[in-house]
Amino acid sequence: MIKKITFIGSGNVAHNLGKVLLKNGIEIIQVYSRNIENAKKLAVQLAAAFTDDLRKLNTESDLYIIASSDNAIEKIANQLDLEGKLVVHTSGSVSIKVLTNATQNCGSFYPLQTFTKSHQADFTLIPICIEASSLESFQILKELANNLSTKVVNMTSEQRQKLHLAAVFVSNFSNYMQVIGYELCEEQQVDFNLLKPLIKEVFEKNQQHNAIDNQTGPALRGDTFTMNKHLDLLENNKELSELYQLISNMIGKSK
Amino acid sequence: MIKKITFIGSGNVAHNLGKVLLKNGIEIIQVYSRNIENAKKLAVQLAAAFTDDLRKLNTESDLYIIASSDNAIEKIANQLDLEGKLVVHTSGSVSIKVLTNATQNCGSFYPLQTFTKSHQADFTLIPICIEASSLESFQILKELANNLSTKVVNMTSEQRQKLHLAAVFVSNFSNYMQVIGYELCEEQQVDFNLLKPLIKEVFEKNQQHNAIDNQTGPALRGDTFTMNKHLDLLENNKELSELYQLISNMIGKSK
Repeated sequence: MIKKITFIGSGNVAHNLGKVLLKNGIEIIQVYSRNIENAKKLAVQLAAAFTDDLRKLNTESDLYIIASSDNAIEKIANQLDLEGKLVVHTSGSVSIKVLTNATQNCGSFYPLQTFTKSHQADFTLIPICIEASSLESFQILKELANNLSTKVVNMTSEQRQKLHLAAVFVSNFSNYMQVIGYELCEEQQVDFNLLKPLIKEVFEKNQQHNAIDNQTGPALRGDTFTMNKHLDLLENNKELSELYQLISNMIGKSK
Repeated sequence: MIKKITFIGSGNVAHNLGKVLLKNGIEIIQVYSRNIENAKKLAVQLAAAFTDDLRKLNTESDLYIIASSDNAIEKIANQLDLEGKLVVHTSGSVSIKVLTNATQNCGSFYPLQTFTKSHQADFTLIPICIEASSLESFQILKELANNLSTKVVNMTSEQRQKLHLAAVFVSNFSNYMQVIGYELCEEQQVDFNLLKPLIKEVFEKNQQHNAIDNQTGPALRGDTFTMNKHLDLLENNKELSELYQLISNMIGKSK
């Protein structure tokens, strides 16, 4: 059972995960960040020690959580010597293999949500995707995750990476479609709020049905009349015009 | 004041709009469709007469609503001789100019929502965008729309067309991002439902804040490490890979 945890990294995930673990009776004993001020800021909130030197990491933790940016994980792991200790990362896109230079006892603890420091997330409904190098460590991580969330799932690195990519489409890219909509409205001084009931309707339909069954619009209908009108409106914006055609083609073929 | 209406067209918009008008005490006296069975089906529900012959259109209506597909509106208008009568279309993408062959007294009555025949929409919160060739007709349409919706707005054809294009991005294209996410999950037998809390979070943030302020993800961070991993995962799908790069580039420049 995990009682003591060290956080390596002090960003959005470390903030949210650290606080919810503390609330659940886990002791956070140390926070590392290469920026000592960031380490301190989070450490104060978690009643933990802090350091900016990986060589000064404690050896008493039951679990070391690398919650750094994805591209730093492997570099950090290569500097760690925690053989026998359990080390996980919180990344969607990184394989657990990169941790094996730090320890053979490794895994992933990936909470699937978008986090910000200013807003503490409610973990109860956030899926936590678990992977570990051994069944024993898997059970330990699962027990920890079950304290936080009702939705804990076993996942391979390959599955987690595809899920992470899917998340980019359904959240980041979908959000960007709203950004484009906002900018188009601005061009004609139209109130973007007029679109909110429509956006709500699409969201609610997708909570109930498969998105493919909810697909509508000129591209699905093969309505070239309307699509050509839209492309006329976009003629001064090469990128947006290209995007419109690309997505419309894909929707057209999806029928 | 409008008491009697004729519908030209019997699709999703005609179904939803016809029923809510009837419910609000308006008489629907006739339904036209080039397919007589479709005309009859809707007419029965609206207690109206029906025809598949534009030459047999009644002349007693206070308002003629062309709720056909966008590319048929002009063709239909050219066959009508309703000078002096008020004729509107319900299209987001078509200018009211195309109606002038039918009558100089024309306009647009555009309910901004996605409709299906099987589900009667609640019009109360649906924006209705109004345009008319004269102030008098505008007031008449506005009075009618106010009976149905709390959100009636005055809009030029240019504004309405941009709004319609924006609607394609925020609803059709955003929905398609969910379709892609679903397919990516399927490839690795991952449960798409795991993404629903994330999708909900993005939706809720966008109801409160501008989407541009909610943009997150590797493209916004300029995280080429993660983007390259994602492109590796998409290497067998040329279109999806192209889409990923195009949207990521646009997000990268939006900072």
